[in-house]
Parts: sequence; structure tokens; C-alpha cells
Amino acid sequence: MLAATGGSLITGLLIFNLRGQVPIADAEHEQHRTNEQKKPSYVYASKEDMGRAILEIRKELGEEGITTDDDDLRQHGFSEWSSINIDQLPTAVAFPNSTEQVAKIARICSKYKVPMIPYSGGSSVEGHFSAAFGGISVDFMSMCDIVEFHPEDMDIVVQPSVSWMDMNDKIKESGLFFPIDPGPPAKIGGMIATNCSGTNAVRYGTMKDWVINLTMVLPDGRILKTRQRPRKSSAGYNLNGLFTGAEGTLGFVTEATLKLARIPEETGVAVTSFPTMRDAANAAIQVVRQGIPVGAVELLDDVQMDVINRMGDTGREWKAEPTLFFKFSGTKVGVQDNIDGVSHIVHANHGSDLEVEKDTSKQEALWFARKQALWSMLCLRESGHEVWSTDVAVPLSKVSDLVEISKKDLDRLGLFGSMLGHIGDGNFHETILYDGKKEYESVSKCVHDMVHRAIEMEGTCTGEHGIGLGKKEFMVQEVGEESLSVMRAIKQSLDPYWLMNPGKVFDP
Amino acid sequence: MLAATGGSLITGLLIFNLRGQVPIADAEHEQHRTNEQKKPSYVYASKEDMGRAILEIRKELGEEGITTDDDDLRQHGFSEWSSINIDQLPTAVAFPNSTEQVAKIARICSKYKVPMIPYSGGSSVEGHFSAAFGGISVDFMSMCDIVEFHPEDMDIVVQPSVSWMDMNDKIKESGLFFPIDPGPPAKIGGMIATNCSGTNAVRYGTMKDWVINLTMVLPDGRILKTRQRPRKSSAGYNLNGLFTGAEGTLGFVTEATLKLARIPEETGVAVTSFPTMRDAANAAIQVVRQGIPVGAVELLDDVQMDVINRMGDTGREWKAEPTLFFKFSGTKVGVQDNIDGVSHIVHANHGSDLEVEKDTSKQEALWFARKQALWSMLCLRESGHEVWSTDVAVPLSKVSDLVEISKKDLDRLGLFGSMLGHIGDGNFHETILYDGKKEYESVSKCVHDMVHRAIEMEGTCTGEHGIGLGKKEFMVQEVGEESLSVMRAIKQSLDPYWLMNPGKVFDP
Repeated sequence: MLAATGGSLITGLLIFNLRGQVPIADAEHEQHRTNEQKKPSYVYASKEDMGRAILEIRKELGEEGITTDDDDLRQHGFSEWSSINIDQLPTAVAFPNSTEQVAKIARICSKYKVPMIPYSGGSSVEGHFSAAFGGISVDFMSMCDIVEFHPEDMDIVVQPSVSWMDMNDKIKESGLFFPIDPGPPAKIGGMIATNCSGTNAVRYGTMKDWVINLTMVLPDGRILKTRQRPRKSSAGYNLNGLFTGAEGTLGFVTEATLKLARIPEETGVAVTSFPTMRDAANAAIQVVRQGIPVGAVELLDDVQMDVINRMGDTGREWKAEPTLFFKFSGTKVGVQDNIDGVSHIVHANHGSDLEVEKDTSKQEALWFARKQALWSMLCLRESGHEVWSTDVAVPLSKVSDLVEISKKDLDRLGLFGSMLGHIGDGNFHETILYDGKKEYESVSKCVHDMVHRAIEMEGTCTGEHGIGLGKKEFMVQEVGEESLSVMRAIKQSLDPYWLMNPGKVFDP
Repeated sequence: MLAATGGSLITGLLIFNLRGQVPIADAEHEQHRTNEQKKPSYVYASKEDMGRAILEIRKELGEEGITTDDDDLRQHGFSEWSSINIDQLPTAVAFPNSTEQVAKIARICSKYKVPMIPYSGGSSVEGHFSAAFGGISVDFMSMCDIVEFHPEDMDIVVQPSVSWMDMNDKIKESGLFFPIDPGPPAKIGGMIATNCSGTNAVRYGTMKDWVINLTMVLPDGRILKTRQRPRKSSAGYNLNGLFTGAEGTLGFVTEATLKLARIPEETGVAVTSFPTMRDAANAAIQVVRQGIPVGAVELLDDVQMDVINRMGDTGREWKAEPTLFFKFSGTKVGVQDNIDGVSHIVHANHGSDLEVEKDTSKQEALWFARKQALWSMLCLRESGHEVWSTDVAVPLSKVSDLVEISKKDLDRLGLFGSMLGHIGDGNFHETILYDGKKEYESVSKCVHDMVHRAIEMEGTCTGEHGIGLGKKEFMVQEVGEESLSVMRAIKQSLDPYWLMNPGKVFDP
């Protein structure tokens, strides 16, 4: 899977689903890349040099600044939420408290050729923070401050471990909020790394649309700030757009200035169910095509609704049918106007009457069912069983077909899986619980079939989760060899020793 | 200004404002870059090799496919709208009719080290298509087709010389439109190159937000397609965001898939005037801060309104006062709701009553005054006089200060200049007419002062026009040496001989 170097021991990286025990290459030997071959490859610090790097980082950051404690290593190299894990952990975990300390770490790692893996919320599901070649996991937990807040400019400057939910809570009195809403544990650094989105994306776009500037530490320790603070600019290459979504393979994000939006005067939440997934998807797509500016439109399948019922957390019984959750936002009259428009489309697609909630406190209870979806699934996981959560996105006209086919596939294989989608973007998720010993092959086939189908429909293997370790295999089919070669050339130009988060997105 | 090569004759590129006659370096000699210095520099084909390249391109594209006619060269190397021109023209102009022909041109130019300059609408104002080192101007006029239109997916596939206005006219029956609205002559290729915006940007964002994928020809002739057609994706580096705004320095855009938006059910246009520029700017910024989703909010100063009156094209007399033009769009009730909100803010900032037009046919007449602004100025230019049009953008809280100071500066210098802004984005333009022989120094100082002031206010030297030749000098101050070095590294990795549109954005 990975390029083998001439005399190196790195002959392959075995990747497998959760909790396997196959060892990966022990990235020893060859401190410097050989020049015999033009193609770069993964060759990193020897154990001795790794030790020297740790000592130097400890000297710079202090005793508390770096750890090799087993629990810490495991916590930073393994995730039970992830669809993929490997049996390799980071060699150490560093905890910088400033951009300058991150730069020091980078300079030391660069000197010894030690891999560096950025870590913030730890909630990604494609192995983004796995230490595929060991090295130093750089946990930003001590960089979690709001640095500056400019309500008059509608922007905010934050460190990478700021939680988007906490941030919104802290600034809500200003009447502003940050509209990108991935999973609750997500933090700004990782949200930038994966170009995340969430339920609000259909209205507000994705992470890259909200970045005004980034302070970055490059693999060699250089510090740069991509831009100043204008809300728009045409000055030079769009480095914000390049670093956002690069999954930490080009450098560390140590500070970000983000745009903020006005909290809408009025909001509404509405729920309705449909006889089939196709009807529900058709209704959602029609809402988008008609340009009704909904705040969100989310599709949950019958299994997902049943799971929410079984958890019993939402204080009511839901119809176990394909269901759409809508958010509305705007002015009072605007919201009512949008609800009327959606209601008409829902009826035309065999949906039940919209259950609308305009009382803000009660809205949360209604939306809570949507929010509980993934966690409800995870709670039902039997001891020792695994979870595989994946996302794809396709052009709008293909969504209904893909949802229907994928749903039948799940049913036919008898897998316990649910479907859930940010359907207005053509983006949806499949979450499957399974017995890793018996069902791995069939789950893997089911996921692969869905992804290949999405790509054949001119879509993408990931709308928001990112590539990480888990989806590299789809990159050639999706973007082609030439696009990949451009990505590799950019990587090579900024990180010639492939030190930043190696093994992710694509290989040398 | 440009890096000098060891034994080369390229010792500097003299850039000056319109119609000067200072010769620039005659990019002769040294077919291959010397290896004596690591820093790349501009060294291009000898005259003989340039001739060979032209012959080979003619052989591939046919007699009509390439010209060295003087009028053609001048038309492709000079612009009377531009704030900057140089006394160097392209050596030839090629007219490819397909991506494959563009690739052939690139392979030939790459072989002989001939500069390549993409050309579409020719309406840029910072010398983007100047042939700073001679070479081949590649005019996309024969690639002007809508390739595919997918109304059901809300996207469209077009060639680079499609006009955004024509395109919108052709697809209007579908109920969809492309919302990015730069100057009327602009074409998609150039719009992507400069990451343009326009009056609709405050509502719909800028060009980069509407690109789904790009077919690119790299400097060495490789062809790639950045993505498939999902409306969102997190698969790999965001090459759309990198190529959009790169001003043709990384490759040719030969095809683009663009998102489309729904034509709003209802639109409105409104005009109001204010006693001072500060009042007008304050009102506009408050509208944005309150999150009223206006379609556009444009500020025109007293001079600009007077110019429109003097042209007499709009069939009425306007108050020669700072004026805001608003566009509204949405549903019927939504538009009225937004008008009410704006009206309230306008009054609170000493504005006159909003003059609102909801009749679509009459809206155009009202908006026509705004559209006429730049052309009205140009029409008043005396024979032999020049025009300097520049744009900056700053954080919202700085807009009123910058507008006020810049306006006083214009008045104090006694220059005939007007101000006009996409004020809701913090972006505005200054257009100055002047006698190039007598007033160049004072105009230059005035523009430079405004740009430096914008950068000092954490803004940008260009919100939408791009850098081209004209604004390279501000890049270091604005983004810093490290960001520039990253841009250079990316350029170097994709265009090692600096063949694509050399001399633009930044130097080696």
C-alpha cells in the first residue's frame, strides 16, 4: 500500500478495522532519504534519534510538555469511534502552549525526521490522528483560548482546541454565532483539517467558507499567517483554502480567524415522515432546488428512528419511518414563509403533516432526536462489536437513487446499519454495527460498494469526514492520477520529508 | 524588481502607468535556467526558439490557430481600462478550440521555455494579461460553449470564454442563474483567475464558492480535472480553491463546472442618499451586522452620482450626494420584510426615505445608474488622459474610517476621482481620471496611501481585482515573507520554469 524504499524496512503498512493486532512496519533506520529514487518515501528517525528528539522537546517545553505514558499514547493513537484503527501508536505526545512552542517542536522533529501528528478534538472517524509511522502526536489541549473577539467585524480569533460549541456559548450575548456544526466533540483545529460541515452546511457552506486567516507552523518550524482580516480578498494564492481540508499534512494550524454570522431573529424546527426513503430524499432535494433557504434538512431512515425510540431519551415515540428534520431561520415572517413552502413540497411527496415547533426551548427537544442519532447507534453496540461510519456525497439528481440502492443493500446483507444524511447537500452517512470477527468482510463490501457507486455517480467518497487513513484507496478513482500528482507536488514542496501526518490522504 | 540571472540580460522589468514608452528587458538568451543560483528567475526562449515554437503551434492548430499580426498582439497586451500597462507585447496569439489543443500549446511552450498568458474577457485592470516577458497569449475565444447544463443538479459545465451574462440569459428559463456578477465583459476563465466577485458577493460569496470542478492544463501539458460533481467534498487538497485566484500562474482553466442558484421569486431595488460618506457607510455596515440578507448594498459617492447625472443616460436627475443602492431578493414577504429592516437603519443614519422599486422592468432602470458608474467615469476621460481604478477591502469596523479619509485625500489633492463600494463586504473602489504627464505622481501617491492605509487596518490591497502586475509591491506588507515563500514553493512545484503568466502576483 505504501511505497517501499530501497534499503528500508518499510515494506507496507497493514491497515485493518478496529482492534486488530497486526504489527505495522517499525519505522526504523535511514535518517535521510536516499537519492537513488526520485519518488519520495516514508523514512523516519531511528529509535535513538526519536529519543533525542523527545529529550530536546522536553527541554524546551518542560516535564509536563511531553509524555510517553502508555495510556496517553493509546488515547492519541486509537479511537473507538473510528472506522479504522492501526496497531501503531505515537512514540510520544507533546502539549505545546503557544505557536512558538509548536514551531520549536517542528524544528526539532524536522532535524531528526520525526513524524508529527496534530491532535485536537479526536473525533474524526477515518484515522486522521493515527500515528501510522509513530512519531510525536501534538495535542493542542493547552491552546484552547479565544484570543480576540471582534463583534463589530463579525469575526473571532481562536486557538485550535477551542470547541465550536463552547465558543458559541461564550459569544451568544453578542448576537453572533459560528454556524459550522460538526459532532459535538469537534474542535476548531480538526474542523479546519477536515474541512468539516454538519447540519447547517446547506445554508451556511462548509468550514473553508468561514476561515479569514490561519496562523500556520510549517513542518520546518517556519511560522506564517495566511492573510490579514478582510472578509474577502484576491491577494495571492488562497492558502486558507489549501490548508483547510489538508488534514494536517501541510502544517499545524495554531490560530484561526473565523467569520461569524448573525443569530437569526426567529428559528423553527419541523419533522415529518415518509413512506419510503426515495420520497423523503425527493422532498429534500426539491426544497433545495426551489431555493427555499432552510437552515438544515436532515434525513434519518426507519432504522435510525427505531434506534432513537429504543434509547428512549427523547421522551416520545417516533414513527419508525424515513423522516426529515428541518431547521428554519430568519425573520418571523421569513420563517413562516419558508415553512409554508416546505409544507407544500412535503405533501406533494407523500409526507405526513409537518410537525412544527417555534418555541425555542421546545425546539431543542425536537432537534435532540436528530442529535442523538449517532450516539444512540453507538449505545446499542454489543460488547466487542465494531462501528463503521462512512459518508459520501453525490450530485442532487443522484441522491434518491443512491439512498434507495444503498438502503436495499444494507437490508439484503442483513447488517444492522442506519442511514442519515445532510441530504440537501447530496451528502449522507451510513453507520453499521457489526461483529468484527464474523461480519468484517460483508460490512467492508457494503461500504465499498456504496462509495464506488457514489464515485460512479460523479460524487465523492467523502463529503465531510475526510480521507484520513480509511479512504486513500478511493482517491485515484475519484480525482485521477494527475490531480493526485499535483497534490503530491504541493505536499513535497512544503514538506519534503513527509513529516506532517504521514500516511494520510495519499501516499508518496 | 525581478530577480537577475547570472549571465542574463534580464536585469529588471520597468513597469509604468499607461502609454509610457520605456522598454522592458528583451527576454532573450539562455534557453535553460542556470543552476548557479537556487532562486529561480525569468529566463526564456531565444528569439529563434520562440519562432520554432510558433511554427510548431501553427502546425498543430492550423493557420488560423496562431497569429503574429501587430493589431492582435497589441489587443492582447494592452488595455485602456487597465491601471497599468507595459511596453512589451506577446510574441504571438494562439486560439485553441479544445483542452487537447491547449495541452499541445503547453507542451510546445514547455519544450522551448516560452511564456504562456491566458486571455479571456480582457477586462482586468491590473495588467493580468500583459505579456511581461513576451511569449504566447492564449486566447480562449473559440472555447465559448456551454458544454453541459444540469438543471436537476443545479450546475453547469462551461468553457472559459463563456460570458457570465450570456450564460445567465441562456439558462434563465430553467429558473436558475449564476450569481457572481463582475464587470459585463468578464468571462468565466478570467473570473476564476482573479477570484472575482461583484455586487452580489455580500449575499452569494465570491467566485471560489461556486466552483465545483476545473479542468486544467498544467504548464507541461498535463490535463487534470480537480474533482467530480458533488456540491461538497472533503476528498484531498482543495485544488479548486488553489487554482481559483491564481491568476493563470499555475495553469490554464479549460473547463469549469459551476454551481447555480435559484432565481429569487421576488426582487426589489432601492436607493437612498446621505449627508456624508460616513453616514452611508455606517448604514451599510449596520445592515450587514444585523444579518439582513440583502442581495447587494453599493455605495456611490457624490462625485460618482454627479458623473451619472452629467452622462444623462438614466433619464433622471440624482442628488449629488453619497448614495446607497440596495438589491433585495427572496419571497414576496421576505423582500418586504428586508426592506422594512433596511429602511429603519437608513433613517437611524440620517438617510433619506428609501426609494423602492418592486416592478422588475423598472428595477433595471434604477439599477442602471449603479451599472453605469464606471462607464460614466470613463466617458468623461479627456483625450490623452488616463484612468486608475483600484480596490481594497478592510474589516467592517474600519470601512467608515477608510472611506472618509480616502475621500478627503482625493478632495485635498484636487484629483478628479470617485468612490464606489461593495460596501457590505468592506470592499470599495477608487477611480481617478488624470493627465498622465502632469498628475501621475500625485495619483500614484493617493492610490498608494489608500492601499497602505487599508493594509494597516488589517485589510487587503485587493478585494476582487487581483494582484496582476500592478499590486505585487504590496504583497510582502500584506501577507508577509513566509506566506509568499509558500506561494512561491507551490508555484515552483507546478511550474518549475515559471512559464505560466510570468511577472504576475509575485516574482521568483
